[in-house]
Amino acid sequence: SSGTPETVIPGASSYNGLNLVPQMGWNNWNAFHCDVSEDLLLSTAQSMIDLGLRDLGYNHLVLDDCWSIGRNSSGYLVADYVKFPSGMASIADRLHSMGYKFGMYSSAGVFTCGKYPGSLGYEQKDADLWASWGVDYLKYDNCFNQGQSGTPKLSFDRYNIMSQALNATGREIVYSMCNWGNDDPFDWAYTIANSGRMSGDIYDSFNRPDARCPCTSAIGCAWPGFHCSVMNILNKMAAITSRTMSGYFNDMDMLEVGNGGQTDSEYVVHFSMWAINSSPLLIGTNIPTLSAANLAILSNPAIIALNQDASAGAAVRKYQYLVDPDETGEGEIALWTRTLDNGDTVIALLNAANTTMIMNATMEDIFFDQATSGAYTTPPQLLATWDIYDLWANRMPEEEAAAIINGTAATIGFNSTSTTRYNATATSYAEGLANNNTALMGVKVGEIAPSGTFSAEVVRHSVGVYRLRAQAGIQMRKRDEL
Amino acid sequence: SSGTPETVIPGASSYNGLNLVPQMGWNNWNAFHCDVSEDLLLSTAQSMIDLGLRDLGYNHLVLDDCWSIGRNSSGYLVADYVKFPSGMASIADRLHSMGYKFGMYSSAGVFTCGKYPGSLGYEQKDADLWASWGVDYLKYDNCFNQGQSGTPKLSFDRYNIMSQALNATGREIVYSMCNWGNDDPFDWAYTIANSGRMSGDIYDSFNRPDARCPCTSAIGCAWPGFHCSVMNILNKMAAITSRTMSGYFNDMDMLEVGNGGQTDSEYVVHFSMWAINSSPLLIGTNIPTLSAANLAILSNPAIIALNQDASAGAAVRKYQYLVDPDETGEGEIALWTRTLDNGDTVIALLNAANTTMIMNATMEDIFFDQATSGAYTTPPQLLATWDIYDLWANRMPEEEAAAIINGTAATIGFNSTSTTRYNATATSYAEGLANNNTALMGVKVGEIAPSGTFSAEVVRHSVGVYRLRAQAGIQMRKRDEL
Amino acid sequence: SSGTPETVIPGASSYNGLNLVPQMGWNNWNAFHCDVSEDLLLSTAQSMIDLGLRDLGYNHLVLDDCWSIGRNSSGYLVADYVKFPSGMASIADRLHSMGYKFGMYSSAGVFTCGKYPGSLGYEQKDADLWASWGVDYLKYDNCFNQGQSGTPKLSFDRYNIMSQALNATGREIVYSMCNWGNDDPFDWAYTIANSGRMSGDIYDSFNRPDARCPCTSAIGCAWPGFHCSVMNILNKMAAITSRTMSGYFNDMDMLEVGNGGQTDSEYVVHFSMWAINSSPLLIGTNIPTLSAANLAILSNPAIIALNQDASAGAAVRKYQYLVDPDETGEGEIALWTRTLDNGDTVIALLNAANTTMIMNATMEDIFFDQATSGAYTTPPQLLATWDIYDLWANRMPEEEAAAIINGTAATIGFNSTSTTRYNATATSYAEGLANNNTALMGVKVGEIAPSGTFSAEVVRHSVGVYRLRAQAGIQMRKRDEL
Amino acid sequence: SSGTPETVIPGASSYNGLNLVPQMGWNNWNAFHCDVSEDLLLSTAQSMIDLGLRDLGYNHLVLDDCWSIGRNSSGYLVADYVKFPSGMASIADRLHSMGYKFGMYSSAGVFTCGKYPGSLGYEQKDADLWASWGVDYLKYDNCFNQGQSGTPKLSFDRYNIMSQALNATGREIVYSMCNWGNDDPFDWAYTIANSGRMSGDIYDSFNRPDARCPCTSAIGCAWPGFHCSVMNILNKMAAITSRTMSGYFNDMDMLEVGNGGQTDSEYVVHFSMWAINSSPLLIGTNIPTLSAANLAILSNPAIIALNQDASAGAAVRKYQYLVDPDETGEGEIALWTRTLDNGDTVIALLNAANTTMIMNATMEDIFFDQATSGAYTTPPQLLATWDIYDLWANRMPEEEAAAIINGTAATIGFNSTSTTRYNATATSYAEGLANNNTALMGVKVGEIAPSGTFSAEVVRHSVGVYRLRAQAGIQMRKRDEL
Repeated sequence: SSGTPETVIPGASSYNGLNLVPQMGWNNWNAFHCDVSEDLLLSTAQSMIDLGLRDLGYNHLVLDDCWSIGRNSSGYLVADYVKFPSGMASIADRLHSMGYKFGMYSSAGVFTCGKYPGSLGYEQKDADLWASWGVDYLKYDNCFNQGQSGTPKLSFDRYNIMSQALNATGREIVYSMCNWGNDDPFDWAYTIANSGRMSGDIYDSFNRPDARCPCTSAIGCAWPGFHCSVMNILNKMAAITSRTMSGYFNDMDMLEVGNGGQTDSEYVVHFSMWAINSSPLLIGTNIPTLSAANLAILSNPAIIALNQDASAGAAVRKYQYLVDPDETGEGEIALWTRTLDNGDTVIALLNAANTTMIMNATMEDIFFDQATSGAYTTPPQLLATWDIYDLWANRMPEEEAAAIINGTAATIGFNSTSTTRYNATATSYAEGLANNNTALMGVKVGEIAPSGTFSAEVVRHSVGVYRLRAQAGIQMRKRDEL
Repeated sequence: SSGTPETVIPGASSYNGLNLVPQMGWNNWNAFHCDVSEDLLLSTAQSMIDLGLRDLGYNHLVLDDCWSIGRNSSGYLVADYVKFPSGMASIADRLHSMGYKFGMYSSAGVFTCGKYPGSLGYEQKDADLWASWGVDYLKYDNCFNQGQSGTPKLSFDRYNIMSQALNATGREIVYSMCNWGNDDPFDWAYTIANSGRMSGDIYDSFNRPDARCPCTSAIGCAWPGFHCSVMNILNKMAAITSRTMSGYFNDMDMLEVGNGGQTDSEYVVHFSMWAINSSPLLIGTNIPTLSAANLAILSNPAIIALNQDASAGAAVRKYQYLVDPDETGEGEIALWTRTLDNGDTVIALLNAANTTMIMNATMEDIFFDQATSGAYTTPPQLLATWDIYDLWANRMPEEEAAAIINGTAATIGFNSTSTTRYNATATSYAEGLANNNTALMGVKVGEIAPSGTFSAEVVRHSVGVYRLRAQAGIQMRKRDEL
Repeated sequence: SSGTPETVIPGASSYNGLNLVPQMGWNNWNAFHCDVSEDLLLSTAQSMIDLGLRDLGYNHLVLDDCWSIGRNSSGYLVADYVKFPSGMASIADRLHSMGYKFGMYSSAGVFTCGKYPGSLGYEQKDADLWASWGVDYLKYDNCFNQGQSGTPKLSFDRYNIMSQALNATGREIVYSMCNWGNDDPFDWAYTIANSGRMSGDIYDSFNRPDARCPCTSAIGCAWPGFHCSVMNILNKMAAITSRTMSGYFNDMDMLEVGNGGQTDSEYVVHFSMWAINSSPLLIGTNIPTLSAANLAILSNPAIIALNQDASAGAAVRKYQYLVDPDETGEGEIALWTRTLDNGDTVIALLNAANTTMIMNATMEDIFFDQATSGAYTTPPQLLATWDIYDLWANRMPEEEAAAIINGTAATIGFNSTSTTRYNATATSYAEGLANNNTALMGVKVGEIAPSGTFSAEVVRHSVGVYRLRAQAGIQMRKRDEL
Repeated sequence: SSGTPETVIPGASSYNGLNLVPQMGWNNWNAFHCDVSEDLLLSTAQSMIDLGLRDLGYNHLVLDDCWSIGRNSSGYLVADYVKFPSGMASIADRLHSMGYKFGMYSSAGVFTCGKYPGSLGYEQKDADLWASWGVDYLKYDNCFNQGQSGTPKLSFDRYNIMSQALNATGREIVYSMCNWGNDDPFDWAYTIANSGRMSGDIYDSFNRPDARCPCTSAIGCAWPGFHCSVMNILNKMAAITSRTMSGYFNDMDMLEVGNGGQTDSEYVVHFSMWAINSSPLLIGTNIPTLSAANLAILSNPAIIALNQDASAGAAVRKYQYLVDPDETGEGEIALWTRTLDNGDTVIALLNAANTTMIMNATMEDIFFDQATSGAYTTPPQLLATWDIYDLWANRMPEEEAAAIINGTAATIGFNSTSTTRYNATATSYAEGLANNNTALMGVKVGEIAPSGTFSAEVVRHSVGVYRLRAQAGIQMRKRDEL
């Protein structure tokens, strides 16, 4: 009867039950912009299988802007039959059969950013159409929004309409907001979306300031712009780290790895810092032209395992010192840390300065949050001795990566005993970690004891990423602070 | 008849008649977060009685987040019967019988910060339920607010709904807003609430800047964050000091004294500056683990008497010099002053610099406001000679505090003649002050005459707090400036 | 017929036809705060007549906050019959008979700043009551406004309700908005009010920054605060100078002259800069205690004539150099200029630095606006030779001021030939200027020719104010730039 | 049937199909302000024909503020019959017959900036009247807007009303928004207008900061003000460059060339930078007083061709170094570049420093965007060798300009073979460029090869503007990045 308490599970791990860890996949925009086609999607999907990327978890194929030719007389969008002769439903079917989720794109405005028809005012029609096609994912942009912004409420209400429309289709569709951090979505989008961009568009530069990306803080950024560098976006994360949650991720934008604008070590920084901050990992390059070195970066399962960790949180910038600028005028060193689901801790010693640095992380730095969050007793983390694993030590050799690209890679031992390769379709990252899979753990390079300090030499524009695991006998309590 | 003037008392000292001086008590969050239980509340209540804390005025027991297991089919919240097997009404009864008010928590959003069900859209149901349980106090948080912020109007309207709901219950419930200063509640919340947070969450650090607490000003802070240090919060108060009023207090967040992240003298600063700024004083530590030193801080009746003074105003930062930073990059000295209800004046010489300082307060500094507020004649304050009482001089010795903790403290002379202990349940602070109770007055350490200067040596990260009382024959007019 | 064009006069010089030049008068707040009474108003009115202030133009007597005892059962405000035993209508009558306009006060909130009943929701009732009493002027404050702010629209709508209510009474009532510049009223209040405060409250300090007045710009100042210095307020004017217009004046707040917090030359700066910026001039001190020196400042008709000039504009800060700070950390020199209705130009050489300065104003500085406003030919101003009159040269000697205060001042020659005294009731400032009345023109101290430079020694914290009049034969076109 | 897809052309190149390249013409405000008349319009129109300006593309004659005498009893505006005795319809007819479009002015407020009646609340009546007169263009100002601003939504909604009203007339009317960049129109006005001001009003100064133009960024500028210098406005463009599009141009305000406040080379900067940023080019001076030198600036067809290029985009500031300030305290050098419709690239080496500079542009600087926009292969631009044409090399000699002014200029060879003169009425710029018309191409001054650097000496407060054309054989892909 109505008098009987019927309890509901408190809280929610995702507004629609989806995307409990960050989405991974590929999006055509960064490399192809409007040059989209059925062939591009399907051949990319196959290449990613061949390179092992799908099985590392990159299993969303997202078609970005410029796919329609307008609306029909009933108000439904019409896909461009020249670019997509088989039709979207057929493409979705084939991607599904290849083990992918299929993503599409629109804008919460009257046009998309490419001036194709936008979904403002057509939310339910468009959602219904996508659902009928078998679409699994929507990237929803912010262009031409008719000035419906300026307060969190204005943006929330506009994006919520599509959220409700997607729900109403009955199909499971991951909702990826792309309003560039305007009106501070990290403060309100968790209840209506699965991820939300928190910055203007990335460009393929490590740290060069560009006049078109005027904000250096995500907060209250009225004009996010584009041409934002890796370091610009990374540091915007520092203030909003607490608002990354299971089911809603602060999206640092698609990866530039492979596009040629950064050095190898800069791409290592980019990929590592996106991963540990639980940003969605959408590859944004032309897969068939991937170099062996770049494939090795994108394929590091030890780093991807951080991203896909069930803790689903962003890292914390424990210190940042502005030092030693390069020709862009930018220079810094920083320590970022994050606690993982199994009690492990990850630390990143980031050298964005202009020369090699000896960098330090003390136990006090690493476990500072535990010590200052009302811990009236010394937190157990500070009493433990931790093994330190270098997560880039097992980076795939270029020869091996080249062999994968050439289709000549050996498969002997792959997955179960490989130190460089991993198949997450076969064995989840969580299971692999529980089994101490070497490919996920990197190489042990030392220990840190109570009151100790870990030091590492980090070259210019690079990062050292380490997994710390407490030695046996210490039970770490997970943090539940908010 | 309707023609007869029926005058109403102009103004109001509180929107609901409650909380004319700042609330005091205990809240579990800082030390326990979600680890809450019936036992924690009741055992803490008893410990606080045993330590004399209840009778010093700490008489609100506030249960923070994570107490429910959802809503029933009628839409009412259901308390977690594992954590609270007796039920909330029973717990409230027992706390009442022990001399406490019982506080609970919710959020003006669809979830609490811990992702338990929030009260947005359920305001009256939730208020009615709390009233039915005998709840006396609501802490009302700001998480998951559906973007209903961005102008003072949006936040006011959202928080006002609960204010009206609480009033409609007919029960006297203190309404403690916790929107972190977002949308400048110090400018509008007086008419709907009894206190309002003015900053992001405190953490147990004296002055370390943290990227997660990005604002250094309370005004227009769109993203208050958390991990805000004692000095960060204190200096945010400087601009909004005039908006602390009887019945509405700017809440600097719960105390960290006892949690181990600060030195003894830093906790003295924290406690003293919260007290003189009429912040609510909610102890935020594990009572059974309180050290003797920390008990001595929380138990200084001379400082508490400042907080509970009927003047109910915040202090004024008369000067601030940024000097002599420590390893955090922060360093300053400052003079804060406040006029009390009986005409006494309190001054705080705050040394947040890195070394011992000789600090000065001139008569012109102390009574600057009186001299510049249209005083066409010299204000009487500048013509008086004032006795100076050091309010930390009678700090309870650690031996005595340890004896209280051990249950071996003597009771002889307690309250009437003790210089260190006080029972405000028995004798109000106002009465004690009128009687020049030594425990409230500290120790006279000097005088200051017209045009004079008071100097004191203040060690690194500490504060000297002094009550000035005009010598006989001078009648001080209280300020009524707004 | 409806087909006949019925032209309306384009534009308006005031939204309600009132206050074409800035209001002058007296307001009790700065000196008396809530200590108000019938006797204070009436005795002040008489003193101002005796001192010649009324006839200099100070003819509004404004009663500020704290005059009511609540609302009656019909919702009408009830005046405090202890403070005002004759009743407000009687007081208004007597002030009218003495040649004054009578001003009152309320707030666009649920309370006044002193927590007396405010007018929000009672606008028409209150306006009707004031009109029935014969009130001529309303100062309308911003306290306790229920969060109805945050965009210009929110503030405009709230203040417009009272504007319409005053109009609806049928009585001519000057509407003086006091929302402290919040939401940028200089951008929208011209069409609904006669003046609008553009800063937080003044205090009696020349240039000391105070934490409670956090804004240094008027624009977007969300928290105007109070304890704003003369220099703080003055420099806030620099950006909004174009929005002072006949019928709507940017109100820099009431005068502090006479209250003792500033030196004589600082008060000269305060009074001069308020005057040339067309701020309302409301004396804010206790008239019976006015010193001779302060009376001489407030009585300088040559300066008042600038304020009452029909050009009704604010001055322009042509240059500002931050130099030579004093103990407050502030220091600057600046040139302000303004074009007057008859083509004369006024220049103010302001020395807010810490030492005596030789200050320069070149022809290019003074007439920079004329040269850069699309003047495809050299503007006539740059081709003229100008006589320079020092407007403080005829400052009333202290002996004379003392004689006025003592009631022993000679009246021989007063007004028609006096160099120090003026009766604007008898002869308007415009007429006096047309007749070259010496009291309005000061003393000629030099000339400036094309390409020339005027130099003057200006002592610390003082200002030289000069009227420039083109020598015969040059016709100056008045600027109509917007 | 309704089942048949009826595709619509995706996107739009203009909200109303008009103004695909920036409007050019003349507006009276900068030089004449309210001194407007029928004679001024018609004589200016004739002068511009005589000087060849109309045929260079300056074919909008825009009457600014101060033309009405109010509204008639039916609510329609009435033109001032003293200033415009023939009536507006007749003036429009004559301008049309002379080959001009006729523009008028109003404000989205209750008054225009000159306090004439504004159109707020009368949008359809006013639009209908203008259409009935044959008006082709509306400049729509922002004064006296009743506080309807503060969020993009508030401004969008207010300006959209007039947009819809103009559309409803059925007449083609270019809609030129003039809200000074308030509420960031570059983010929302594309769908409702043809251009939008992005800054406060210009004044005739190269780089002097003025207190009345307080913003140095276009973004979030709540108080745009006026008296903004050329460099102030130019640098505001740097962040919003991506939001200039065919059909909607960011309007940097009317030209000051000819008004005498800047040096010849400063006017060259002003004109060049407005042109390459696709700002509308509205001459703002008294045509009959144009000097030969100034005519030569306004008549450079090689620069105008940049402005009228179908690419319709703004330039990008590739670097800016703040160096070598002059007496205003301002100093910088900067490189701006832009890709043109035919694959050519324009570069501007801007020296706003105080001395002559040797300035460099490397291939990497020039084609930085191509290299960092996901180009996984080296972009073809970096592989080409480019011819470099100096677009000011063929500046019309003063003698020739003087002859045009005197009416003695030879017409032999004009247009087809002239290196200095051009008739765009006869031959479009696009056609001329396709034919390598010398007047549009300037003089070849060098080449730049892969990895090369172009260097030029640029004198103080000047700019070098160069068109780069890839040597034969290289096919440049146009950018479609958004």
